[in-house]
Amino acid sequence: MKILGIDPGTQVAGFGVIEKSGSKILTLEYGSVKAEKKQTFAQRLHTIHAKIMDVISKHQPDEIAIEEVFYSKNVKSAIRIGEGRGIIFLCAAMANIPITEYAATVIKKAVVGNGNAQKEQVQAMVKIILSLPEIPEPKDASDALAIAICHSHNLRY
Amino acid sequence: MKILGIDPGTQVAGFGVIEKSGSKILTLEYGSVKAEKKQTFAQRLHTIHAKIMDVISKHQPDEIAIEEVFYSKNVKSAIRIGEGRGIIFLCAAMANIPITEYAATVIKKAVVGNGNAQKEQVQAMVKIILSLPEIPEPKDASDALAIAICHSHNLRY
Repeated sequence: MKILGIDPGTQVAGFGVIEKSGSKILTLEYGSVKAEKKQTFAQRLHTIHAKIMDVISKHQPDEIAIEEVFYSKNVKSAIRIGEGRGIIFLCAAMANIPITEYAATVIKKAVVGNGNAQKEQVQAMVKIILSLPEIPEPKDASDALAIAICHSHNLRY
Repeated sequence: MKILGIDPGTQVAGFGVIEKSGSKILTLEYGSVKAEKKQTFAQRLHTIHAKIMDVISKHQPDEIAIEEVFYSKNVKSAIRIGEGRGIIFLCAAMANIPITEYAATVIKKAVVGNGNAQKEQVQAMVKIILSLPEIPEPKDASDALAIAICHSHNLRY
């Protein structure tokens, strides 16, 4: 059972692929894709979409998970968040892979045991749960792995 | 000079393709794509994305135009608006076609001559400008044509 967690964005998107095998969780790959400043907004989305499609093609995940978003500074930034999310949903549908959303509190609860945990605590726990030598960088990748771990806890098989 | 106007959405998206030839504007095609209720959210975005890519492939527009959005009922609906817009920007980048955004007031001003015009006035003027026998249906298609007309007014060639 391979899970791809994604932390969407319109400039940078983090991703993390884990494999759940019984009670063990293996880390297959994590990283981020960063669009270039000289790109138009549309080109940035294309760069991110293409990279996530590459990751999907390489690892063939069974499931995809992303964070659910409920709030934002303002309408403009909410629309921007949506634009980054839309292309990730599209990746999932193009690859015919189920995609599940989790609220931030649910992700924190799954990883740290506390729905109000600080971001740093989540990142430290990702390192421990995945037996990594250090906290995965960039932070977008670490967040993506946290989402994948959360989803792995919800799987019954 | 062919222009594709798009009224994005996550359930229904309108599109309209016009061709500007000197002072004349020809209507090449308009319509809408409607996702099915039984589809998952990701599948709906995929359906809309695929249809818009088909329209692009068929007409090979030189330019794409969509409405800029500044406001929304709430954060949740703003994120949803963004999700629908993100896949349209992606279509433009995938096809390597420039995409331009116009505020609603600019579109109304271009089509009706009044930035505060009612939606019905815009639709009536779309019919007149394009010499169509009736107001294009569905309304999403009519709105998409209005966006395309607006963009045609801004072209210097």
